[in-house]
Formats: sequence, C-alpha cells, structure tokens
Amino acid sequence: MITSLTEEQISTLIQKNLKEGNKTELQTILGQLHPYDMAIIYTNLPEDYKLKYLLQLSIPILADMIQELSQDDQISALQKLGKEKSGKVLDDMDNDDIASLLDQMSPEKIKQFLSGMKKEESSIVQDMMTYPSETAGRLMTNRFVWIRHYYNVREAVDKLKSFAEFAETINYLYVIDENRKLVGVVSYRDLLLADMNDTIKNIMFERVISVPLLTDQEEVARMIERYDFLAIPVVNDDGILKGIITVDDIIDVVIQEANEDIEKLSASGKSIDFETKPLIAAYRRLPWLVLLLFIGLVSGSIISSFEDTLSKVVALAFFMPMIAGMTGNTGTQSLAVVVRGLASKDIDMKTVIRLISREFAVAIIIGITCALLISMIAYVWQGSTVLGFVVGASLFITLIIGTMAGTIIPLILYKLNIDPAVASGPLITTINDILSLLTYFGIASYFIHHLMQ
Amino acid sequence: MITSLTEEQISTLIQKNLKEGNKTELQTILGQLHPYDMAIIYTNLPEDYKLKYLLQLSIPILADMIQELSQDDQISALQKLGKEKSGKVLDDMDNDDIASLLDQMSPEKIKQFLSGMKKEESSIVQDMMTYPSETAGRLMTNRFVWIRHYYNVREAVDKLKSFAEFAETINYLYVIDENRKLVGVVSYRDLLLADMNDTIKNIMFERVISVPLLTDQEEVARMIERYDFLAIPVVNDDGILKGIITVDDIIDVVIQEANEDIEKLSASGKSIDFETKPLIAAYRRLPWLVLLLFIGLVSGSIISSFEDTLSKVVALAFFMPMIAGMTGNTGTQSLAVVVRGLASKDIDMKTVIRLISREFAVAIIIGITCALLISMIAYVWQGSTVLGFVVGASLFITLIIGTMAGTIIPLILYKLNIDPAVASGPLITTINDILSLLTYFGIASYFIHHLMQ
Repeated sequence: MITSLTEEQISTLIQKNLKEGNKTELQTILGQLHPYDMAIIYTNLPEDYKLKYLLQLSIPILADMIQELSQDDQISALQKLGKEKSGKVLDDMDNDDIASLLDQMSPEKIKQFLSGMKKEESSIVQDMMTYPSETAGRLMTNRFVWIRHYYNVREAVDKLKSFAEFAETINYLYVIDENRKLVGVVSYRDLLLADMNDTIKNIMFERVISVPLLTDQEEVARMIERYDFLAIPVVNDDGILKGIITVDDIIDVVIQEANEDIEKLSASGKSIDFETKPLIAAYRRLPWLVLLLFIGLVSGSIISSFEDTLSKVVALAFFMPMIAGMTGNTGTQSLAVVVRGLASKDIDMKTVIRLISREFAVAIIIGITCALLISMIAYVWQGSTVLGFVVGASLFITLIIGTMAGTIIPLILYKLNIDPAVASGPLITTINDILSLLTYFGIASYFIHHLMQ
Repeated sequence: MITSLTEEQISTLIQKNLKEGNKTELQTILGQLHPYDMAIIYTNLPEDYKLKYLLQLSIPILADMIQELSQDDQISALQKLGKEKSGKVLDDMDNDDIASLLDQMSPEKIKQFLSGMKKEESSIVQDMMTYPSETAGRLMTNRFVWIRHYYNVREAVDKLKSFAEFAETINYLYVIDENRKLVGVVSYRDLLLADMNDTIKNIMFERVISVPLLTDQEEVARMIERYDFLAIPVVNDDGILKGIITVDDIIDVVIQEANEDIEKLSASGKSIDFETKPLIAAYRRLPWLVLLLFIGLVSGSIISSFEDTLSKVVALAFFMPMIAGMTGNTGTQSLAVVVRGLASKDIDMKTVIRLISREFAVAIIIGITCALLISMIAYVWQGSTVLGFVVGASLFITLIIGTMAGTIIPLILYKLNIDPAVASGPLITTINDILSLLTYFGIASYFIHHLMQ
C-alpha cells in the first residue's frame, strides 16, 4: 500500500522501479497518484530517468500530468516524447492550457507544435487564439458533454458514459436545442436522482447563466464566485454554446489578478516570480524606476525653486521627508481600498459619491489628528510657534490632497476604462510628492519673515 | 418566460405580485432564480415588502438565499423571520457560514441566536467555533454525504437520493470505514458510470488527499488550487472524517488573503471596504499613519544632524526626495515579489539563497544604470562633478541596500513564523528612508570641502 508513504519515499520507489524496469509495480504505484504528484515526481527525477518515466504513462494521464508542469517543463517533456506522441498528448490536453502555452511562442514554433495534432483539435486551439487574452474565449475548454433537450435521462447518462474520459470532471451537463443554442443545465446529481425515463427538458434548470466570448476574465471570476458555480458556459452573440470555463481555472485567474494588482500598486513590473532571471527582472523593473527617478527630480526642482526660503530656514528641510511621506501614505491607503473594491464589484454613481464623501471625512479626521500632533512636536523640537503652525497647516492640507488624489484618480481611470491600478501607484506618489512640497514651501514662504524671527 | 427579463424587470414583477398577492405567479418566478439573484432582489426591495418576500420562500431556499446577503442583512432577515422560523433556517444553513456570522457577535447574542436551532445543529456550530479562525476546522461544512466502503453502487446512490436536499452540490462522495476513518472517494461520475452492483471499495480512489483540522486556510487553498479539487476532506489526528471544504469557500479565501496582503503592503489597515463608516476607517488607518509620522521625524532628525553640511550645500536637498524615494521603490518592488511568492508556494533554503542572489544581481544592474543616469543629470543641472559623483555613488549604494532590505526582511519574518506582509511595507520604507539619508549625507559630508569649491 503506497497510501501511507511520503512523497519522497514514493519518488525513491519509482526511481528504483524505473531502474529495474518493473512495469507492473510501476503501474500499481502510478495508479494511485494524482497528476499533480506525478508532475512533482517528474520534476525531481534525474534527467536520464525522465523519458523512461513518461513512457510509463498513458496518453490521457500524460495530458493531465503535463498540464501541471511549469511551461518550460511542459515544452521539454513534449519534445522528449517526439512529434507523433506529443501530438496525441496535445490532442488530449485542455485547449485553454495549450493556448496559454502557445501564447509565449513564436508563430514558427506554434506551427511546429500544432503540426502533430489532429486537424480538428489544432483548429479549435487556433480558433481560441483569435480571442484577446484574459477573455472568456481564451479561458474556455471544449472538453464538456452537451445533451439535447429532448433526450431522456437514460440517453444523457449513456452519452456521459461514452465521453467519460473526455469530459472535465465538473458537475453539470449543458443542454442545447436544435441550433446548438444553450437552453438549460442539469447536474450529475439531478441525473442520479431522476427517473431514467424523465425527459431532460422537464428536469433541467432553464435560467442558465452564461457569459459572452469577450467577457473579461475578472468578470467571469466574479460571476463564478458570486453564484458558487463549478463551471460557467460561454456563448457567442447568438446564444450558441462555444465552451465552458471551470472553477479550477478561475482560482488561477483570481490569484493572477491579485498579483497583477500588487505588481501595479508596487510598480514591481510584470510577472516577476522566484524563477525569473536577474537580467529579465531588472529589465522589467527598470522602466518604472527610471520614471520614478525623473519624478524625484521634479520634487527636487520644486525644492530648488524655493532654495531661497530653504537656505534661510534650514529647519524646513527636517520636516520635508515626513510631509511628503505622509501624503504618499494616505494616498496609497485610499488607493488600495479603491483598487481592491473595484476588483470585487461593479460600482454606480451613488457608490462613487458615497465613497468620495467617506474618504473626505476620513481625510479631515486624520488631517486634524496628525496636524495637531506634528504642530506640538515641531514647537517643542524647534521652539518656534510659527514653524509649528506652518508644518501643521501644511500637513493638514496635504493629507486631504493625498487622500483625495488616492481616491479620485483610480476612479477616473476606471471610468476611462483604464485599469485603475495601472499607473496609479507611482502616479499618485508623484502627484502627492509634488503637491505636498508646493503646499509646504508655499505656506513657509508666505510666513518666511515670521519664521526668521 | 422570465428567462429573457433583466434583473430590474424581474424585481419590478416580483414587487407587483407581492402587492397583489399572486402566490402561484411568484412561485413560478422564484423557481427560476438563483439564490444570489434572490438575495439581490431582497436587498433592493422596499422595507415593507421584505418580510412578505421572505415568507414566499421555503426553508432550504431561505437558507441558500440568506447566505448570499451581507452579514448585517443576514441578521436583520433572520430577525424578521422570528425565532422559530429563523432557527429552522439556521439548521439548514452551512455551518461554516453560521460560524463566520457568529464570529462578529457577543457571547450573549450568540446564545440567543443558537437557541432556536436544533440541539445537534447548534452543537456542531459551537464545536466549529472552538477551532482558531482561518483554519480548516472553521471553514469546513458537515453538509456532505459519506458512504461505507462495503456499500454497493446502488446503496450509495440511494443514500445520496435520501440526502439530496442536504448535501453540498459537489462532485464526490467520501468513503469511510467502520471507525469513521476516511478511506476513499468516489465521484458522482464514477457512480453514473459504474454497474449498480459494483462494491464501492472496488471503484473508489484510495489515495484521498485530506487536511488536518488546524491547517491554515491559505494552505488549504493551495492544495485545492494545486490538485484542481472541487472539495477537500478534513480529518482529525486519527484520520476520522470531520467535514469537507468546498471550492466556493476557497475562492473567497484566495480573495481575502490577497486583500490582506495588499492591505498590509499599503498599510491601509484591516478590512476597509466601500461600506466602512468614516470614523471606523480613520480609526483603522490612524495607527499606521501616526507610526509613519514618527518615522518621518527620524528621517528629519538625521537631516538635522547634518544641518551643517546641508546649510553649506543647499543643493544637496534637491536630490533628497529622489534618493529616499528610489530606495523605497526598489524595496517595495522586491517586497511585493517575495510576499506574493511566499503566498503561493513553500520555500526551502536553496530557493532562499537563489532568490537573494537573484535580487542582489538585479540591484547591481539597476544600481549601475540609475547611478550613471543621475550622475550625468546632477552634473548638467548643478555643474559640479563632485556633486554628480556624490549623488550617483549614494544612489548606487542605497539601491542595493533597498533591494536587499526588501528581500531579506520578509524572508526573516517568514522564518520567524510572522506573516511577511505584516509590518514589512512601512517597516521597509522606514529602514530604507533612514539608511538612504545616512548614506547620502555621510558621503556628502566626506566630500564637503570638494562640494563647496
């Protein structure tokens, strides 16, 4: 019984059996593993055992296992298998996984890849590639079983049986009419519970929720999350069923979208993970950094235009990092609330106005608290009432500006159909830096003769 | 046919029928709605229609619908129904949803709430509340159907039929032995495909993957994501099946964990969404802001200790925001990569060393590029080679410090079993601010006599 073994023990056992060529033993072990576990074992195998291992697996199992590998490993495993066998494996893989694999390749390589596949399978994949990435059309799979509304339960179960290997293991059968239009859905459970002679039309649920081909993947994720679906059907403009999107792909979408928001908020550049090479990571981060460098210089030139004020009261420099920093911080706080809020729900004008008023109220409360605090500190530290007033008043104003910029800018970007997280992280920091320095030195210059007393 | 109506039209139609008391009409409409849609309609109904609407729904439908409401609305809907009926609804609700509802309440109120429920149901909920929040024990539901390994397929289907209303609509039946130990799993599809007389033991999949009661919810999410499961069973230390966690709850976990990471990275305070009241939002954000204010003053006091250098070369102030800002930015970039990386996989020592080396290499590349750029700019702008050198050299060093702080601090927090996102956003900004100013003014003071020429 391998049930009680650890991953590592299983891995060693497989290596031993590969070496000795014990096929029956290997089959028994592999029969009890999940594709994900098989993939982990494959990744950890020494290079010269890898092909032997792959040859132990049947085509459908290979297809499931390869989908769990990283994209680089997927390509190398398929190459190991040779054109003919890899074509068969590709025929069996989910077409959404193939599409995302091809996404990274040159047209030349794509052609070579698809050449080993069956015509009908490769044309489905090529079809999918015509939809923009991150839309329903790119996420859907054609591995599902549809039934006609005039079938009875027995016919539906028979069809399910004959396509058993083929169908994604989700819970529903989608029902279509003569024109392939989506008209209903029945769950496997409904089938188990119904009488064999019931007509599908009578047991199906008619108000099927579906998404059009061009729906953004974030919206698809929201629907599945909202309705607790295990899958959602994708239809074209005529309501014809084109594919389904399953919940496991949606979990990946949710993670990907959250990572994208974080990347954008932190200006950390696209898709850098633990595996990314240094040169590539540097290349992806540099554009933002260079932009931010110039932005920093704008702040610098504002300071330089107040050089006169600053050289007369050097103490003004002491509070500069605090004021710029605080304005940036309140901006980022509001921004994070708005960006994540927009990711999880649609908003209307009423919500927008309520949100802006709320943030304004928050800014006033925070502004008063922090301004009083810093005025006292500045007075105690530098012994100047005027300096205390200048620093406090500046902080009060810049905190309000910072909060409002962090709230309103992402809302405007959203309204303009630009992803609100896109530029707003660095954008808001910049704007806030500049506005806060202008406010601070503006107020200070106005009171300069009092400050110098 | 309501299939073709919009949400709004359905809502109006329901209001009209509620007013006129057309029960049959109402039942036809409601029969075609998803619980989520029912919940939206409920939320938008005028206050005096709400109870009438609730009374149209059967207990199981009410349970499903109420789970889709916000927690405030859940409580008010249950109160509208009165103690007896709300008790029955609670009996039917998923116990993980009840547990998360109770989580917000005083012990007094919890008691009152549970008093209407059946003893066995309320004791299950009370049992769940003993597990720490964000663990498998708190997420699991007892709404699943288990079967014995010696059943045949017919007996399994019969059991499923008799518990049809009760079971979560997932795809699996979990198999237990005489001691309630989890020994296997069969999918509904397996049941449909098998012969009615097959024994479950022969068709079940034995290597069931399960999680212990105290597993962190993030780990549970990772398992479900990894294996593309629709549900995962929860077992106690003796391997006895205690409940299951379904994929729809996991999507919520993934979203919640991502939001938590963003909240912490942006120091925006716990759980502020569009609905949070201004005072509460301000109260949750202020602690970080006050902390950051004092941190800003530390930077200020560093500047003040270099007052002499600064007052001699005021131009040094022009590059201050840029240097502090850039150091903060590279730190945040590395931090975001590490925090999200840690959220999606376990790491070993090898990965840590590779990651630190990678980030160091990135820092060198970025540091050289930005330092050369800024040296030239400083030279052209201020006409001083020495200033160009001081600014460039400072930026080179602080970028390396910033990147390393952003990489190593979250890894140390992770090693100490502290959530790496916890304090590292503001923490890293602080440390980087202070280190960058020390480096900059340190180098500048050393070259001060050259700078003054």
